[in-house]
Amino acid sequence: MDNAERPETNGEGRFAYAGLDRLFHERARLSILTSLVAHPEGLVFNDLKHSCQLTDGNLSRHLQMLQEADLVEIQKGSHHNRPQTLCRLTEIGRQRFMEYIACLENVVADALDAAKQGSQEGTLPGLSPA
Amino acid sequence: MDNAERPETNGEGRFAYAGLDRLFHERARLSILTSLVAHPEGLVFNDLKHSCQLTDGNLSRHLQMLQEADLVEIQKGSHHNRPQTLCRLTEIGRQRFMEYIACLENVVADALDAAKQGSQEGTLPGLSPA
Repeated sequence: MDNAERPETNGEGRFAYAGLDRLFHERARLSILTSLVAHPEGLVFNDLKHSCQLTDGNLSRHLQMLQEADLVEIQKGSHHNRPQTLCRLTEIGRQRFMEYIACLENVVADALDAAKQGSQEGTLPGLSPA
Repeated sequence: MDNAERPETNGEGRFAYAGLDRLFHERARLSILTSLVAHPEGLVFNDLKHSCQLTDGNLSRHLQMLQEADLVEIQKGSHHNRPQTLCRLTEIGRQRFMEYIACLENVVADALDAAKQGSQEGTLPGLSPA
């Protein structure tokens, strides 16, 4: 079956979205990164945990992955004499996350266009029961 | 540390995105569903495979999950005397996918707002090295 016969296919890989890197796309990390992008000065561990509704263990695990990829930096220090962990996006983390968001924007635009276009189509291809 | 002290936290679960159901959010399935929403008349297996750049095995596995959740229907038939598998979104599949897309739209809007707002902030909290 060639493309001339089914032009509505829109071509090889049209909806493949290679830019949706799992590192950013996984829901908990998407949540962490969106929180951090709003706070270039960083967020302390507990505030980030509440903002994303994650457990201590889950947040630690995801932060470690993001830190190993150089997307997030973790700074242990103290505030009013109490220990505090500050989490912050790196500059490269911010850049790459915004590239991912641009790809996500394309997905949303495609889906909204597709839904609009799809609702205007209606013809069924000639398919007989097996 | 209470919210009055750190108003920039934006509240409990502000960035949790509970609506990002893994069933829709996983990249291959997001790709399949975006392809199908543009084709209410359905797409044959091979066209869908090319559109999403998936292997036969991967596409089959994801289609089975979507079918078990009643989001996609699979119809085996023939076209010009050749066996053909037609994949189509169900009505409930279409509705739920568009709800997921609305949630994704919020994520994109939040991230773009956050990036804009974040770039206007700059103060570092008082954190001393450990």
